[in-house]
Amino acid sequence: MAQLLKGAPVAEAIDARTAADVARLSQMGVTPKLAILRVGDKDSDLSYERGVSKRCAKLGVQVEVLALPADVQQDALMREISALNEDATVHGVLMFRPLPRHLDQRAADAALAPAKDVDGITAGSLAGVFMGTGEGYTPCTAQACMEILAHYGIETVGKRAVVLGRSLVVGRPVACLLMAANATVTICHTKTPDPAVIAREADILICATGRMESVGADYVAPDAVVLDVGISWNADKGKLCGDADFDAIEPLCAAITPVPGGVGAVTNSVLVSHVVQAALATLG
Amino acid sequence: MAQLLKGAPVAEAIDARTAADVARLSQMGVTPKLAILRVGDKDSDLSYERGVSKRCAKLGVQVEVLALPADVQQDALMREISALNEDATVHGVLMFRPLPRHLDQRAADAALAPAKDVDGITAGSLAGVFMGTGEGYTPCTAQACMEILAHYGIETVGKRAVVLGRSLVVGRPVACLLMAANATVTICHTKTPDPAVIAREADILICATGRMESVGADYVAPDAVVLDVGISWNADKGKLCGDADFDAIEPLCAAITPVPGGVGAVTNSVLVSHVVQAALATLG
Repeated sequence: MAQLLKGAPVAEAIDARTAADVARLSQMGVTPKLAILRVGDKDSDLSYERGVSKRCAKLGVQVEVLALPADVQQDALMREISALNEDATVHGVLMFRPLPRHLDQRAADAALAPAKDVDGITAGSLAGVFMGTGEGYTPCTAQACMEILAHYGIETVGKRAVVLGRSLVVGRPVACLLMAANATVTICHTKTPDPAVIAREADILICATGRMESVGADYVAPDAVVLDVGISWNADKGKLCGDADFDAIEPLCAAITPVPGGVGAVTNSVLVSHVVQAALATLG
Repeated sequence: MAQLLKGAPVAEAIDARTAADVARLSQMGVTPKLAILRVGDKDSDLSYERGVSKRCAKLGVQVEVLALPADVQQDALMREISALNEDATVHGVLMFRPLPRHLDQRAADAALAPAKDVDGITAGSLAGVFMGTGEGYTPCTAQACMEILAHYGIETVGKRAVVLGRSLVVGRPVACLLMAANATVTICHTKTPDPAVIAREADILICATGRMESVGADYVAPDAVVLDVGISWNADKGKLCGDADFDAIEPLCAAITPVPGGVGAVTNSVLVSHVVQAALATLG
C-alpha cells in the first residue's frame, strides 16, 4: 500500500510561514491584497474563487473580486487589467483562465504587471522559471508539486522524473523546477507513442495530462512517487477524480497524492504566499 | 558507417534565404547591420568574430565591432549597450560571452533591447522559446541543430530525444525546440547518474556537455542521429574535437555531425539570418 501524500499538512506549513509574513506586514501598516479577475461565472472558476477567498480570509489577506460579464470586450478587459496594475493597494492579481474564446488570452496575460503576477502567467515569470533566476512567480500548481516533494522529504537529486503533459500551466514549469532540483526529467505529451513505457522508468511521476484517469497501472514502477495534478468530476463514479487512475495505481507505487486533497490542496496556499511576497516586495 | 551530417549545405540553404531578404532590404534602402560587442581579446572571441564578419560580408550585412578593454567597468559597458540599443542603424547586437568575471553578465544580458537580441540571450527571447510563442530570437546554436535535422529530413515527431547538458545557451533551448517539434525529450546533466543508459534510448542525441569527447560509444544506439555542438582544441590529437568521441561513435550510429564542419558551421548563418530578420522587423 502506497504512502498517501496528503496536501493538508503541506498547506499548513506554507500557511504558517505566510501568517508570519502577514503579521510583519501588519506591523508596517500593510494589508496584502489579492484581486481576482473573473470573466463570466463558470462553476470551476467560482469554486476556485471560494477556495482562494477562504484561504485569504484565514490568513488576513484581503480579496477584491472583479467580475466581468462573459461577453466583455477585449478593450474593456485590458482597461481593467491596466487599472489593477496601477492600483497600489492591490499586490497580486489572479485572472481565471482560460478566458472565453472571443478574448485574446495572450494579450491579456502579457498586459499584467510582472510584479503582480502571483499566478506565474507572464513571460517574465515563465522566463524566470526556465532560466532558474528566481525572478517573477512560479506557476502555483507546479510549485505545489515541489512543496509536496520537499515536505515529505522525497529526494530529487539524480532521480528520474517523468512529466506527463506539456502545458505552460503545469507540465513545462514543473519540468524546469524538477531539473533545477537536479532530477533528470523527461516530458511526455500527446505525440509520445509510448508514454507508459517511459513513465515506468520514473522515480517521480507527474500526472498532468488533463485527461481524467488517463494514467493507468502500466505507468508505474513499484518505487514510483506519483503526483496527480488533475481534478475532474467523474459523473460515472459520482466523485472527483485525478489524471491518474488512483484505485489501479495506489496498490502498485511507493507514494501517491490523493484527489481531492493532494496537489490541489496546496496550490491555494502557494498562491496566497505569492500575494504576501508581492506585498513584501513593494516595501523594497 | 554513419551518414555525415555536414553543416555547409545547411548553411548554404539558410544563406540563400538571407541573401534574398538582404536584396529586398537593399531595394528599400536598408543595409542590415550587426554590432559585435567584445570585451578583451580572447582567442575564441576573435575567431568567432572573424567567422561572423566573413559570413556577413558575403551576404551584404554590415558589421561594426565595438572592442572594450578587458578591465572595462560595468557602468561603461552598460552605457555602450544602451548606445547600441538607441542606434537606429544597428539591427542586431552580438555580445561575446562569458564576460570577464568582474562584470555582471546577467545585468548586461538584461540591458540589451529585445528587438536587437539576435543571439537569443534576453529573458524575452528565452521566454519565447520556452512558451513556443515565436517571440524574440532563438539561441543560434540551438536553432542550428533544428536546421540540420530539418535539412536532412530527420523526423522528430514521436521520436525520443536526449539532450546532454542543460545550459541556457544550448541544452535547455534545444530541448524546448525539440519538444515543440513533437519529440519526447529528456535532459541529462552533471547530476544524472547514468547518462549513457538514458542516451542509448535516444533516436536523436544532442551532445552539449561542454566537455571534450565526453560522449563515448556506450551512449549510442545503432539508429541514433547524433548532433555534436561542442568544439574544443584537443592538444593531444592536435585538432579540434567535439563533445562526442567521433571516432568511437561514428561506426555505431546512423548519422552524426562532424566537428569542425557540423553544427558550428550552421550557427553563424542562423545569427546572420536573425540580423536580417531584425532589420525587416524595423520596417513594420
